[in-house]
Amino acid sequence: MPLSMYQASVPVFVRVLGVLSKVLDKGAAFAEARSIDPSVLVNARLAPDMLPLSRQVQIAGDMVMRGAARLAGQEFPNTADTEKTFPELQERIAKTLRFLDGFTAAQIDGSEERNITVKFGDRSLTFTGQDYLLNFVLPNLYFHVAAAYLILRHNGVELGKRDFLGM
Amino acid sequence: MPLSMYQASVPVFVRVLGVLSKVLDKGAAFAEARSIDPSVLVNARLAPDMLPLSRQVQIAGDMVMRGAARLAGQEFPNTADTEKTFPELQERIAKTLRFLDGFTAAQIDGSEERNITVKFGDRSLTFTGQDYLLNFVLPNLYFHVAAAYLILRHNGVELGKRDFLGM
Repeated sequence: MPLSMYQASVPVFVRVLGVLSKVLDKGAAFAEARSIDPSVLVNARLAPDMLPLSRQVQIAGDMVMRGAARLAGQEFPNTADTEKTFPELQERIAKTLRFLDGFTAAQIDGSEERNITVKFGDRSLTFTGQDYLLNFVLPNLYFHVAAAYLILRHNGVELGKRDFLGM
Repeated sequence: MPLSMYQASVPVFVRVLGVLSKVLDKGAAFAEARSIDPSVLVNARLAPDMLPLSRQVQIAGDMVMRGAARLAGQEFPNTADTEKTFPELQERIAKTLRFLDGFTAAQIDGSEERNITVKFGDRSLTFTGQDYLLNFVLPNLYFHVAAAYLILRHNGVELGKRDFLGM
């Protein structure tokens, strides 16, 4: 089967959200085992002016939800970003997975040349669908999932590369 | 132009190595401006049992060198991993970019179903070309570049999402 825009997007998003969910499970189990208030991890950051774990998860979710919708030329819901606990973050991931489940290959395949405009800080960026997926959605997704993983790793949670690759 | 294995690999690798090079430049400039021994940053880690910045850069380079070669069905050189300074890490990136420059689209396109076996820890994993690129090479590449970025960010280097996206 030749590589397609669907194959390079939705199944990858689903896989990476599954990785993120298991990484968060390990964080929650670590807090439980050490009698650490879980909110310490949920609010942890790698630098004082970086976003905390909770926002890394929310942004990863938004990135793939918007990614799939924009490639399919559909609208996407706005999210409230109110999650403050590990169970709430897991529900956010589950909700995102249900949203992704609504897309078929036929809706996303052929979106290579679709014009997609996104706001990025104070700028407006216009991509082709292919460029948007390869050079915006995927790097953003992996960045925020790696940040979530590394925030927990930095705080002592036992995580290895296999957890990040889901292998 | 439809999405192809080449489009989803070599140009993305080149772009991400360019990002990594600029991130390292900011790290070197930060050390210079603050009169910090640059080797403090080159050897910095996010956890005592994690790899330091230098290894993150070396592994990112190996990942894309081997990625392109395996997709093309070619051999790849072994690397000595002796880099200990920012200029040496930049030369490693430059060498990797020269290696990637040797691949044409014709060599990599059509590799979706090619069987690729890699050693991962004590296991041997066999992928299709498509699965290898999407679920092994790209996540690994982004993981190590994000780790390099976050090691520097954690140590006070001024970096923002634009630096990671190269925008």
